[in-house]
Amino acid sequence: MVKKSITPGPRDERGVLAARIVAASRDEFAEHGWAGTTIRAVARAADVDPALVYHYFGSKEGLLDAATNPPQKWLDNVAKVWTTPIEQLGTAILKLMLASWADDEIGPTLRAILQTAAHEPATHEKLRRVVEGSLMGVSQLGRDEDERLVRSGLVASQTIGFALMRYVWKIEPIASMTNDEAIAAIAPNLQRYVSGDLKAI
Amino acid sequence: MVKKSITPGPRDERGVLAARIVAASRDEFAEHGWAGTTIRAVARAADVDPALVYHYFGSKEGLLDAATNPPQKWLDNVAKVWTTPIEQLGTAILKLMLASWADDEIGPTLRAILQTAAHEPATHEKLRRVVEGSLMGVSQLGRDEDERLVRSGLVASQTIGFALMRYVWKIEPIASMTNDEAIAAIAPNLQRYVSGDLKAI
Repeated sequence: MVKKSITPGPRDERGVLAARIVAASRDEFAEHGWAGTTIRAVARAADVDPALVYHYFGSKEGLLDAATNPPQKWLDNVAKVWTTPIEQLGTAILKLMLASWADDEIGPTLRAILQTAAHEPATHEKLRRVVEGSLMGVSQLGRDEDERLVRSGLVASQTIGFALMRYVWKIEPIASMTNDEAIAAIAPNLQRYVSGDLKAI
Repeated sequence: MVKKSITPGPRDERGVLAARIVAASRDEFAEHGWAGTTIRAVARAADVDPALVYHYFGSKEGLLDAATNPPQKWLDNVAKVWTTPIEQLGTAILKLMLASWADDEIGPTLRAILQTAAHEPATHEKLRRVVEGSLMGVSQLGRDEDERLVRSGLVASQTIGFALMRYVWKIEPIASMTNDEAIAAIAPNLQRYVSGDLKAI
């Protein structure tokens, strides 16, 4: 068992401890939301002294901010997926979503964002930035800015709704579909948002 | 201003006060989640004594249960929509969703369910029942039970994701699309989930 300490450790220990605290806080925020999460519970889960959490993150707000910061590898993956040829984009986006939720770091972060976005203005704002900036911002869809934002917003509405049902609320049979079944069922709908006619009905 | 009272009023007053408490609690739960909501704050918003809230609902759990009970008119509307001819079902479902969120009673209830489902096992379970029973249970989709549940689960994933972005998180431009734009963009995707080929890719 790692010693509990209220004084920061040596330089190279700081990163390890801070990462362990952030990982524990993601789980706590995802499980109990903003109001239900305490610094004390996070410290206990990370096996450190609460004072160390304050020392590293300043406050519960600072900790939430760290817990819900999109991991760099996720931002890189998202940026890369938007370079996919447009006719394959629906499938590429869904595959990225499935891989992201299966990732040890990205999955819990996305879950913490979705689970705290409901109540916390700061996370709500972060969710908006993640959706608008990461999911919508770099896309090259449509002929103008309005169309680009509508198309990528619709893509986000489907991927977020599916992720909530599958990974957060775990509603069957969505939760236990295979990835291949999910891709076959959903990718064509995403592709329509990407490149289909959205005005005719 | 209505008098504050810790004793229940006459019979006909009870319904009025209870409804006012439930309405206030929906807003509080939707805004602050389970952990962030107090009986005291609900009582203040409803302009009654906290003791009356306990008298009527027993506990915060009882109040959450009342606040997130799907209104009967919503259940009736959902049952009715599933009788729509299958080739028009995508549009009918989306129109129902748009009308439901605009409704003074149904909208806040759906919002309270989505906002507390994240954290509370009881509401999570209720969300599951609402989705499986109301959105999926009465549908006549598919040739067998498995296919019916997959199709209606996919419909739910899209309508829930869209509702969160449009009504709860208010992310633009989804939040300010007109109903007609939303129907033209999304109904065909719902229709594919209802009656399209979900296995070919």
